[in-house]
Formats: sequence, structure tokens, C-alpha cells
Amino acid sequence: MIDFKYTGGIINEEEYQHKIDEARTYVAKAEQDSFGGWVNLPVDYDKEEFDRIKRAAEKINSDSDYLVCIGIGGSYLGHKAVIEALGGERKRTKILYAGNCLSVRSMKKVLDELGDADFSINVISKSGTTTEPAVAFRIFKQKLIEKYGEEEAAKRIYATTDANKGALHDEAVAKGYESFVVPDNIGGRYSVLTGVGLLAIASAGIDIDALMDGAAEERASLISDGGKAAEYAAMRNLLLEKDYNIEILANFEPQFMYLNEWWKQLFGESEGKDHKGIFPASVVDSTDLHSMGQYIQQGRRNLFETFVEVREDCPGITVPTLEEDLDGLKYLEGRELDYINKTANAATREAHTAGGVPVLEIVMPTIDERSLGALIYFFEMSCALSGFTLGVNPFDQPGVEAYKTRMFELLGKPGYEK
Amino acid sequence: MIDFKYTGGIINEEEYQHKIDEARTYVAKAEQDSFGGWVNLPVDYDKEEFDRIKRAAEKINSDSDYLVCIGIGGSYLGHKAVIEALGGERKRTKILYAGNCLSVRSMKKVLDELGDADFSINVISKSGTTTEPAVAFRIFKQKLIEKYGEEEAAKRIYATTDANKGALHDEAVAKGYESFVVPDNIGGRYSVLTGVGLLAIASAGIDIDALMDGAAEERASLISDGGKAAEYAAMRNLLLEKDYNIEILANFEPQFMYLNEWWKQLFGESEGKDHKGIFPASVVDSTDLHSMGQYIQQGRRNLFETFVEVREDCPGITVPTLEEDLDGLKYLEGRELDYINKTANAATREAHTAGGVPVLEIVMPTIDERSLGALIYFFEMSCALSGFTLGVNPFDQPGVEAYKTRMFELLGKPGYEK
Repeated sequence: MIDFKYTGGIINEEEYQHKIDEARTYVAKAEQDSFGGWVNLPVDYDKEEFDRIKRAAEKINSDSDYLVCIGIGGSYLGHKAVIEALGGERKRTKILYAGNCLSVRSMKKVLDELGDADFSINVISKSGTTTEPAVAFRIFKQKLIEKYGEEEAAKRIYATTDANKGALHDEAVAKGYESFVVPDNIGGRYSVLTGVGLLAIASAGIDIDALMDGAAEERASLISDGGKAAEYAAMRNLLLEKDYNIEILANFEPQFMYLNEWWKQLFGESEGKDHKGIFPASVVDSTDLHSMGQYIQQGRRNLFETFVEVREDCPGITVPTLEEDLDGLKYLEGRELDYINKTANAATREAHTAGGVPVLEIVMPTIDERSLGALIYFFEMSCALSGFTLGVNPFDQPGVEAYKTRMFELLGKPGYEK
Repeated sequence: MIDFKYTGGIINEEEYQHKIDEARTYVAKAEQDSFGGWVNLPVDYDKEEFDRIKRAAEKINSDSDYLVCIGIGGSYLGHKAVIEALGGERKRTKILYAGNCLSVRSMKKVLDELGDADFSINVISKSGTTTEPAVAFRIFKQKLIEKYGEEEAAKRIYATTDANKGALHDEAVAKGYESFVVPDNIGGRYSVLTGVGLLAIASAGIDIDALMDGAAEERASLISDGGKAAEYAAMRNLLLEKDYNIEILANFEPQFMYLNEWWKQLFGESEGKDHKGIFPASVVDSTDLHSMGQYIQQGRRNLFETFVEVREDCPGITVPTLEEDLDGLKYLEGRELDYINKTANAATREAHTAGGVPVLEIVMPTIDERSLGALIYFFEMSCALSGFTLGVNPFDQPGVEAYKTRMFELLGKPGYEK
């Protein structure tokens, strides 16, 4: 279960309670179903599809060195975040990502790594016509057919797409690809616990039952009145009202780097509209204390920081003992490295608070499937409540079309000629 | 040679010229040597050390599968940025990074990858007592001695440190490590073209002569009056005066991800003080157009964007031709992927400009050593001029000590007891 705390000392208790009450009023919308399908997903998902995902992952583990996941935005960030946060692949199958950009150098790198190894494809696209994944799917499908022939290739393509219509849906039906659903009522950035994210996660050897259980437990603690999510949503909006318009998500664990990126999409895309929103940024410490640390400590005072902290100990590496003490580390000899890391975390929170940075804390008990499922659900609910409190629709993303429209004009796509 | 352009349409020509004139006045400080040693480094570096670096890299390539680079902040970001921007290692030796955080999980990952392979260490620390690299150096030195014995281990340790004093200097002298210099008059974030960055870069098989030549050429174009660097510095400060206080460095090349990170340290640490500074952020597109794109297009209008664009074509991957046109890509069949990527870049600049985001452009002719050396020097000079124009000292970082001091108190380091 995720805990949220405010430790910064800039907000007074009365205004905070008032804002929490406001954020809580929006929870009723979740019950009225206007939040979309992610709200009840952890307790109301398609068990038949879930079992098919697990079986597909077993097949992929048995016949593939690589699973090439083709998708962009919400169709890749969520599963990449989960897999990396849990320490990476635990099975033979390594996950590769394609179709999340248009760089030739990046594409060549993926093709080089793939080499002549055995692989399967999970193409993830609701429409099947988004440029980046559609181009990548053509390229990797061609490679798959060259390697295995049409018939076997079709058995190595897993399509996550619309349940009833669209280019990828139609192709999957025609060619007999095993298919999973991108639900109509769950936006990309809220979709990691659907077929969008779960096939890659399961193929990496991660326990998706425990992931869903963690989300369900967190849901239980938030669904009646918003719980800690309402507190986080309230605090963010209160800080924004006081002109703290940049939020930095901070942690002390490099394997959380893509969790940060997922969080940036979730909040940035949900709140960044109508010329509003908190600008989402992130750091991984203590690494970035030696790059962004100076700015955070003493720069413009329009930012606040939200630390994601892990309670459990991570033992196993201690500071070696040496005869001499040239480096001045004698006082740490025999200490667990994890203890030093946690101390650096505590010291940073105090130092930044003293420097005038409001500091929030989100506490995970452990780094495992259950905790991560809970954290994902916590952020999703917080984001929804925060967006409504801000006065925007946290479930649309009208601005994403602007570059696409202009690109289609420049590329001369039929229907977009000027 | 790096080109800088302003394409956004918010700034008028008169105020721009005025601000450029102001930024130019600070170039005189460079000639008075108060910028430090990086200014003349590309034309005035230690040729003997440079040759030793190349020979050391050859030895490392001949006897090491891995070079473990131990350093934090400016002691790792620069070379990581250069190596990744140029597409990664071209030799047998793969570069691993340690001592840039305190995470046990991260340390175990590096130890796992290293396994029983042949390796050498480049430990990079001016003092030798910074906690993160000092702890990592103890751990990897122990592993090296266990594998090779004391005498051979000493031949596989390369120390980049102070020329005359300090814990690591003294140890290097006592044990006979080959040593390179962290210059007194070049701060960490400006040090990539010194012994701090060059051993790793050369070990990756990158032509460090061409890198220095590129920096020298760029220096020639900036040193008399600031050139394009004065323009960029002026534009940044003018935008800040108009309350654009977040700058997003954007590119369309995933291998520039750590170049973005290096840039964030350079500008964030140089300008983020005295409660001033532009908050540095970054995106890699088109990937992040599907995460941060919504915010950039329609969120709070306090950000501007600086695109790093590459002019040269990167041919070799075209959109495959299919019989059917299920995915609607027929109009792109046979087109170079790089053409689509460049079109997405142009479309994004136009879309964001239309959305009210001031857009700046920095143009690299190619992605090679020469261009990258030029870009590094361009950013360093721009940063120095921008910092002085802002009214801060762009060469100190007093705020980085705050978390360390508190950490030492909590850890009970001798001399820091409360």
C-alpha cells in the first residue's frame, strides 16, 4: 500500500484540508464511470484474455530470444517502466522496443541487436495507422516472414489493438494473429495493466497476477474517498496556486528511470492543456544531485519535489575494508551500501526543504509486483483527481494531433494536401 | 560548424541586437582567463598526455572486454554523452559506469554484466574522497586484485585526478597507476575534453583528434565576439525576461539522450543559483511527442524549445512496399525513414511555434567527432556568456554541498558530528 506524506512546511493545515475536500468531490465521477475503464480494471478485467496473455508469454519464452514490442507513447512506456523498475527480464526472452521514434540509427541498432536470433512481435496500436509503429511493423514483419515464412510468422505476431475495427484489427483477423484488446474506454497513458502492457510484462517473467492484486489493493484504499491520492492531488494544486509550477519526481534507484518517464506522460498529458498544468520533470539520485542538484538547491524557487522512496532494505553489498584510509571512507567500512543510499535520500529531502523546495514523499514498502501495481494505480487516481481539481479534462490529449497534422501535410498524405 | 537560428517570432530585432551586444561584452572575460582553462583547451592542451591517453586506450582495447568508468556528475556525463551520441563503442571494449549513484541494485547489475570478463578501471575524481566514486572504487579495485593480483591490477587502473595532491593522486603515485589530470582551472561540467572524458572516449574507438579539431574550429568562430554563442545566450536571457523560464532541449535522435543530460548539467549547474536560472529539461522526439508533446503544445506558456538538428542524411532504411494498404502507408512506400524523421522534426517546430512556444534551432552538419566537438564547445561558450548575462557566476556550484553536508552529519563522518 502506497503512503503519501507532505514534509515541506509551506502549506498550512487549513487550506490543505479544504483542498483535499475539493479533490475528494471528484471521486464521485469515478463511480459514475466518467473516469473510464481503468478505475475498476484491477477488480474487473477479462480473465479469459488474462489467461491467454500468460499462455502467449509462455510460448514466447519457449520460442523467442527477443520480443520486439512495437508501440509509441502509452503503448510502450508503461510496460518498459514496469519491466525496468523490477530489474529487467527474468526469462530467456529479452524485450526490444521499436516504432517509438523515426530514427534510422535507432532502428538499425534494434536490427543489429536482433541479428539472426529467434523473435516474436507484439504490435500495439489501437488504429494500426499511427506512423511510427506502422512503419516499424512493416519492417519487422518483413524480417519475420523472411526468417520463418508467412505461416509461422503469423504465429509469432501478437496484435494488441481495437476489439472490433481498424487496420491492425482487420489484418489480425485476416492473418490469424493472436490478438489482445486496447480498450475503448482506457486512454493510452492509463493502459499499462491491460493487454497493452501485460504481454510484454508477462514475457519478461513478471508475475502479472501480483501486479493486478497490488493495483486492486490500492484501489480498495482509494475508491471510497480518494484516500492518499486525494491528498497528493490537493497538495499539487495548492502548490501550483502558490506558483510552484514545476514538479520533479525524484528517486534513488536508477531502475526507476522509465517509471519517471511513464509518470511524466501520465501527468503531463493529463494536465498540460488550456495553457495550464504543472511541468513534470524527473531526476534519479544521487546521480543527478551532481547535475540538476545545484538548480534544485538554489535555482528559481518555482519547483517542488516528490520523492518515491522504497522502505525495504536491499542488502548484499558493503563498503570493503582497507588497511589504509586514503579515501576517508574508514567510518563507513562494513556498512551496507543501501544504508548509505537511504541516508543520502533523507539528507537530500532535508537539504532541499531547507533550500525552499516543498518536498512530498510517496512511500513504497518494497520493489515488487504488488507494490508497483499499487503505485501505478495510486498515480492514475491522483492524476485524475488532480486534473479535475485543476479544471481540465485529464483524459484527453487534443494537442498531440498538431505535429501529426502538419507532418501529414508536409509528407503529402492523401486527404492532407494543402 | 554549429549554426544557431531563432525561428519563433516573439522577440523583436532591436531588443535582440541589444541583448547580443550585452552578451558579447562578456567575451572579454574569456580573454582575461577568468572563464578557466576550457576556453583555450582545444588549441592548447597537453600533447604528451593526449598521446598517453591514446596509448592507454590501445592497451585497454588489447586486454579488456570492459572499462569500468568510476565517476559522478561531470566525471561521467561528458564521455557517456559523446560515446552514445556517436552510436556507442566501436571496439571490443565496452564502457560500464559505476560510482555515479549509491544504489545496490545498480551496483549488482554492473557486477553481473562484468562477470568474469577481462576489465580495467578508470577512476575519475579530483579529490578521491567523493562518496559515490570512492565506494565504487573500493569495490571494483578489490575485484580487480582478486582476479589479477596486486601487481597486474595496478596496471589496469587508470586514475584521472588532481595533478599534485589528494587521496587518489597519492594512491596513484604510491601504487604506480597511470594517471591523467583533472585540471584545477576547469570545472567538472566543462571537462569532457580533458583527461576526465578522453580516456573513455578513446577506449570506445572514437577519434579524439577529430573531436578536439571540431572544438578548435568552433572556438575560432566564437572567440573574437562570441559569434552564434552570443546569439543563443542573448536569446535565452531575453526569453527568460519575458517569463519563459523552462528550456526544453529537443532532438529527433535517441542516441542524443545523454547529450541532453550533459547539457542539463552544464546549464542547470551554471545558472541555477541565487534563486535564478532557466529550468533545463529535454525530450527525444518523436518518442516524447507522445508523452510530453501534449504539455509542450498546449500547457502553461512558460517554456521555450531548442532543437538540435542534424543536416546530413542517414540513408539505408526505407518503408517496405506491401500489396495491400491496410495501414494507410502506401503514400510513403520506398521513402527513406530519415526523410520522414526530418519531416516530423520540421512539422514539430512549426506546430509548437503555432502553439505559442518560442523555438530556437541549433544545426549540426553531421553526427561525427568534429561536429560533436564543435557542439560541445558551442554549448560551453553559450553557457558562460548566458550565465554572465543573467548575473550569476557560471563556474561555481555552491549548492551541491548541501546534501553532502547533511549526509555526512547523518552518517556520522568524523568532523561532521552535530
